[in-house]
Amino acid sequence: MADKKLVESITSMEEDFAQWYTDVVKKADLMDYTSVKGCMVFKPAGYAIWELIQRQLDDRFKETGVENVYLPMFIPESLLEKEKDHVEGFAPEVAWVTKGGLNELEEPYCVRPTSETLFCDFYKNDIQSYRDLPKVYNQWCSVVRWEKETRPFLRSREFLWQEGHTAHATYEDAEARTEQMLNVYADFCEEVLAMPVVKGKKTDKEKFAGAEATYTIEALMHDGKALQSGTSHNFGDGFAKAFGIQYTDKDNKLKHVFQTSWGVTTRLIGAIIMVHGDNEGLVLPPKVAPTQVMVVPIMQKKEGVLDKAYEIRDAVKAAGLRVKVDDSDKSPGWKFSEAEMRGIPVRVEIGPKDIEKGQAVLVRRDTREKIEVAIDDIPAKVSELMETIHKDMYDRALKHREENTHAASNWDEFKNIIENKQGFIKAMWCGDRACEEAIKEETGASTRCMPFEQEEISDVCVHCGKKAFKMVYFGRAY
Amino acid sequence: MADKKLVESITSMEEDFAQWYTDVVKKADLMDYTSVKGCMVFKPAGYAIWELIQRQLDDRFKETGVENVYLPMFIPESLLEKEKDHVEGFAPEVAWVTKGGLNELEEPYCVRPTSETLFCDFYKNDIQSYRDLPKVYNQWCSVVRWEKETRPFLRSREFLWQEGHTAHATYEDAEARTEQMLNVYADFCEEVLAMPVVKGKKTDKEKFAGAEATYTIEALMHDGKALQSGTSHNFGDGFAKAFGIQYTDKDNKLKHVFQTSWGVTTRLIGAIIMVHGDNEGLVLPPKVAPTQVMVVPIMQKKEGVLDKAYEIRDAVKAAGLRVKVDDSDKSPGWKFSEAEMRGIPVRVEIGPKDIEKGQAVLVRRDTREKIEVAIDDIPAKVSELMETIHKDMYDRALKHREENTHAASNWDEFKNIIENKQGFIKAMWCGDRACEEAIKEETGASTRCMPFEQEEISDVCVHCGKKAFKMVYFGRAY
Repeated sequence: MADKKLVESITSMEEDFAQWYTDVVKKADLMDYTSVKGCMVFKPAGYAIWELIQRQLDDRFKETGVENVYLPMFIPESLLEKEKDHVEGFAPEVAWVTKGGLNELEEPYCVRPTSETLFCDFYKNDIQSYRDLPKVYNQWCSVVRWEKETRPFLRSREFLWQEGHTAHATYEDAEARTEQMLNVYADFCEEVLAMPVVKGKKTDKEKFAGAEATYTIEALMHDGKALQSGTSHNFGDGFAKAFGIQYTDKDNKLKHVFQTSWGVTTRLIGAIIMVHGDNEGLVLPPKVAPTQVMVVPIMQKKEGVLDKAYEIRDAVKAAGLRVKVDDSDKSPGWKFSEAEMRGIPVRVEIGPKDIEKGQAVLVRRDTREKIEVAIDDIPAKVSELMETIHKDMYDRALKHREENTHAASNWDEFKNIIENKQGFIKAMWCGDRACEEAIKEETGASTRCMPFEQEEISDVCVHCGKKAFKMVYFGRAY
Repeated sequence: MADKKLVESITSMEEDFAQWYTDVVKKADLMDYTSVKGCMVFKPAGYAIWELIQRQLDDRFKETGVENVYLPMFIPESLLEKEKDHVEGFAPEVAWVTKGGLNELEEPYCVRPTSETLFCDFYKNDIQSYRDLPKVYNQWCSVVRWEKETRPFLRSREFLWQEGHTAHATYEDAEARTEQMLNVYADFCEEVLAMPVVKGKKTDKEKFAGAEATYTIEALMHDGKALQSGTSHNFGDGFAKAFGIQYTDKDNKLKHVFQTSWGVTTRLIGAIIMVHGDNEGLVLPPKVAPTQVMVVPIMQKKEGVLDKAYEIRDAVKAAGLRVKVDDSDKSPGWKFSEAEMRGIPVRVEIGPKDIEKGQAVLVRRDTREKIEVAIDDIPAKVSELMETIHKDMYDRALKHREENTHAASNWDEFKNIIENKQGFIKAMWCGDRACEEAIKEETGASTRCMPFEQEEISDVCVHCGKKAFKMVYFGRAY
């Protein structure tokens, strides 16, 4: 009875994907709502995923020479206004502090929605000579955007992220760093989150406020919608000119620096849920699973069962894995469901009969496959399974994306796909913003990116029939 | 000439301690000021110390069962007001958000100065049964207090910290956790920061707004002033009653929970500077030194010198230490000064003559002692030095505190110490708040704590002569 309830309480994703998502984030205990409208609590199971993302991504950053810093959370209004496009992009959605202590502030401060302006203000003094370049700084922090519609992890008024901000001597150096960081993100998604992504460039319409070029990684969710999962921006010298960030070059001349910024957010947790999850709940990629192995004792009151469970835990821990024993007073069936709901990659079932036979049963979360294994072999086998599960999860996600990526060579095909299928549509585009807007207007599909890997589907724009400029991935997006 | 300048630019601590402090934080490149009044930038050298503190302290937390979470940075006014003492303590110094996007908010939100109220609001729903207890949650975040006077790391409008918030079934459980976390802090200060602390209880006057009891660790700075370095609070069931946090106990009765909170901040970086620093700059305890060993090549253009420097770096790195080579085009003298200014525990000097003899010179930052060592022995020797330096730094700091802790058995002695000496004064106190306030009024010395390790200096209050209640540490404080 109790066992069933836990599982029954999730809506199936085929029935209502949005409700399935909400059920998973709640039942897997990832988050909670709060009295602060549009903001959420990251509960231990949710925050621990972020910690694992943070640590592994930070290590990759540092390998490329990134140094971490921390800048204030407030931005004076006059600073935000210095770069025209940037302020237009962000001013409508920021929170304003107008009172400090008992006094009105002379100038309102916004709570950072992003920190380009603060980094510029800082770099203006910190950079004097070519010897000071490049600056490759990053910060882990929270930012605030006063969104009207919010969804856990995908869009909330406050979210956690990292924002890298760099300054370089030349445009080419800035461009190289922009692309380098996009590749770091793509590799991280594939190698850590088991999530394939499409790398590409945003159209002018979709680029970041103030950027010359925005690069993006786009992932396909279970329901066929796209999720922008990370972006990297090349600012050229636009911000440097607005803020007066200059350095004395080797030739003794004053020159403006070239800048980039790049970020990923806690939205990645939403991506993990929607790429890998199923109707039993969350399915976590092993590298970001806070608990990788759950040992579930069966008939745990029988002498020796719990001891054996702890023994297995210790052996698995010694093999370098994150492992727990569920020794609570719940029934084994309940524990199985709970471990599945929380997405724990492997569970180990061990009862008196298993102990007699010197074996245990391993159950994979992703396939629910059961594997009998000698107790002594458990550490080696679960270590191996972590690799296998990662690879299989990646392959399934890639297959799903490939099966849901459709080429449209003319407008009838495009409309037909939109009406009858889901996923990415790849099609040629003329490069005209009016055409891009018309496509969105007529179909709801936006330009996700111009992929680095171009194909020539036809030589004319799918919508207007004029000469094609680029192949674009279109899709409905979160 | 250039070499000298770097060193000359620090004021000596005997001449002007406050200016020495400011010089060190700037010249060691730990922080910078910003356009946001009262807020600071944590530069890479400063932030990296915080990262090392964070990781090592977080590991110690997790060993005691702490789980990390993240709650919103905003607190609605009505929530902040729920606990009377708490709002009185914090309302005068918070920043208020009154506008979100383009609209005035219906209710102002303050930016969290601390998160007791939010945790209570969360626990109210999250805790239902005795099975849900204890909750032992912590978050790493920034908080805002609208201070009038600010000083880098010691007091700024925004600072970084961790705040633990726990809920328990009984008062005794809460009290045990309060004391446990104080001990975690004290051990961390001694074992990681090489900083001895006095553990004790705050008087009612000095306790946290809303707490039944506040415990503190107090450290003594070079200039004889005290720095409160961490606190742990037992709230009893005061917040639980104000917020209605109840659980159904095993006996099926509804009961209020008992709560604690505890925190340390980036102020610890200020403590490191003022406990260990000297007139050459920062002296970093090895366990929080972002670079533990700096290899400085001498005559680096001579063939083989840089190669040998990199070889040494790789060997030291393989021994598990954080090590760099300063291969910039500055002079060796400049590099020595810079490594000293930045507090790097050991530098390795290696030049053509050293290479010929198969040796190098190690220089300890804390004592400036020079040690000749065979090149092959460097990794083992620097590893050993990390331990020795830590221990010696701790011993020196303890000796300084002991030499600057004075017992006063009557008011004349107390006044005499205040006028002619510096440091802690230990003296008996009657327990009367009026007396405590009079002492502060007359001498500027506040009650730092009632140490756990009590001594009986006399049996009457040092100020009023009434029956003594406790021995108290008094001191001028940051």
